[in-house]
Amino acid sequence: MRAYNKSRIVGQLLFVALGITFIYYLFTPSVSHSNAVKPKARKADINSINVYDMNEITASANARENKEEVLILSPIARFYPEYWKNLLKLSYPRNLITLGFILPSTRDGTKIHRDLRAAVQSVQKGPISERFADVKIMIQDTGLSSGQSEKQRHEREVQKERRSKLASARNALLFSALGPKTSWVLWLDSDIIETPPTLIEDMTQFNKDVLVANCFQRKGEKLVPYDYNSWIDSNVAKELASKMSKDDILLEGYIELPTYRTLMAHLHDENGDQKTLMRLDGVGTTALMVKAEVHRDGAVFPTFPFYNLIESEGFAKMATRLNYEVFGLPNYLVFHYNE
Amino acid sequence: MRAYNKSRIVGQLLFVALGITFIYYLFTPSVSHSNAVKPKARKADINSINVYDMNEITASANARENKEEVLILSPIARFYPEYWKNLLKLSYPRNLITLGFILPSTRDGTKIHRDLRAAVQSVQKGPISERFADVKIMIQDTGLSSGQSEKQRHEREVQKERRSKLASARNALLFSALGPKTSWVLWLDSDIIETPPTLIEDMTQFNKDVLVANCFQRKGEKLVPYDYNSWIDSNVAKELASKMSKDDILLEGYIELPTYRTLMAHLHDENGDQKTLMRLDGVGTTALMVKAEVHRDGAVFPTFPFYNLIESEGFAKMATRLNYEVFGLPNYLVFHYNE
Repeated sequence: MRAYNKSRIVGQLLFVALGITFIYYLFTPSVSHSNAVKPKARKADINSINVYDMNEITASANARENKEEVLILSPIARFYPEYWKNLLKLSYPRNLITLGFILPSTRDGTKIHRDLRAAVQSVQKGPISERFADVKIMIQDTGLSSGQSEKQRHEREVQKERRSKLASARNALLFSALGPKTSWVLWLDSDIIETPPTLIEDMTQFNKDVLVANCFQRKGEKLVPYDYNSWIDSNVAKELASKMSKDDILLEGYIELPTYRTLMAHLHDENGDQKTLMRLDGVGTTALMVKAEVHRDGAVFPTFPFYNLIESEGFAKMATRLNYEVFGLPNYLVFHYNE
Repeated sequence: MRAYNKSRIVGQLLFVALGITFIYYLFTPSVSHSNAVKPKARKADINSINVYDMNEITASANARENKEEVLILSPIARFYPEYWKNLLKLSYPRNLITLGFILPSTRDGTKIHRDLRAAVQSVQKGPISERFADVKIMIQDTGLSSGQSEKQRHEREVQKERRSKLASARNALLFSALGPKTSWVLWLDSDIIETPPTLIEDMTQFNKDVLVANCFQRKGEKLVPYDYNSWIDSNVAKELASKMSKDDILLEGYIELPTYRTLMAHLHDENGDQKTLMRLDGVGTTALMVKAEVHRDGAVFPTFPFYNLIESEGFAKMATRLNYEVFGLPNYLVFHYNE
């Protein structure tokens, strides 16, 4: 009986060992599948001390080879399924991509949240190899409404307030989502419905601090410029700004206040080299690639007039003040939802 | 035999169940002890979607009751054991405190890292109830040296560059450590070796956007002012700044360039009410409590002259431009290492 007991105990121990092994694997999928969970998170589970050597984080022309992490940030006031479909077509490895969204805490926001969450879950609950590294959804009273028409949204009088709120939402999203291991931040507006699938590879290859694509709309067969926030400053604009109060802003694209800035939207050449670069003084955010260190160094989206500029145009100015270089790709197109 | 087998199987199942339960608790201390691991991290383990309702994050006069999370940030160029000892005396619940440090990637930095890590580990490997919620250590080529003497560090010529680098380090630390659930950020310089243990409760109770304590040194029995960065602007200073180039900065505390600003350091009254508040235009960071939303909204530490101000004084200006209010506590003291 004692011998029998022994073998029974051995059997039970084996069972328990198997149970332990099984449970261990159940609780640590992250160890074998790095795209399901970041090692960082597990490290925190163990001893709650995280050490990051920031010097090891590169942002280079060989982003993919160097396994550089990309954070895609989109404030969302309306959920376009075409935006999501386009995002899923991007060829950059998803285990290196984190998505960050900020939604308004309004009734519209609730609907956006439902649609976005369903879209995200269908990917994040799918095959591990197809999941994004992480997805962060912030809900905040952004003050941004999706109820305005395109015309309303562009009325000059409301632009200052609207863009100030947008800047605030961008900063909140950035501060909450930017991690210590992020190499690149891709600002991608939620109404961008078509980009080349190689968008991330294409834009990082230039190894620029700040780089913006040219944003157009498709109207039938015609390509029509959409984003006028990417420009080279003019003497007229500088003169106008110098006469303004520090609290005023000099907006672009209003016929009643011509700035004679050189607009990247007007320099698109359909037959030109897609790799043509131009230096810019202002940028839009429709598809804007920024080295994470530019943000970490303090370049944010001014919610107040900064050198008479605000939001993304103010960001370009701030990046320049921090001695970073700002470029645009006049012949490299992304497409805005056709309004 | 069959009956016996059954009972053996039942016994084995029970054992396995016990094993599972044991392992479950081993791997999920966070569920029962929220100060060991944040639920956030576990949530990410499961489906890699994190949703944060930013409207639920309060920063109020009742921080402790509302379980508001505090992030303590310290750039470290030298590790003072007295700083750490003082930190451990703070009475605010540690499961609501995350610590963030940034160290230079120099030989000095390696030593600081060793000392800091040893100090942190002795707490984070100790009893769960005494652990901090999280500790993040960033290592970066900050350009800050601990090899300079106090005199050298204050030479006016080197101040601009030094404080620009310090601002850059602060921004990097802030961007990497500020999470979506942080309510308050306490900037605590690494050479602050004595504060009241109730520092966090004391400073949050005023419910101010930005609030700075008064920093002194103990010289024997005497209390000597240390930090001159907390001040109210003067007409002389405004006049001086208006004549400067946009790239110049107007520093405080240099006899050759008197600003006649009202310095909080000079307004300390040993017998005065510790709760006395004063509005400020510039602040230092020795012990500076900031609502996280002020940073999220875009207030960072300018590394370039911003209204002829830089670093913490520039931060106060930026916060003011964002319509936040900046205050100081002239009679509430914290103490700097005696140099």
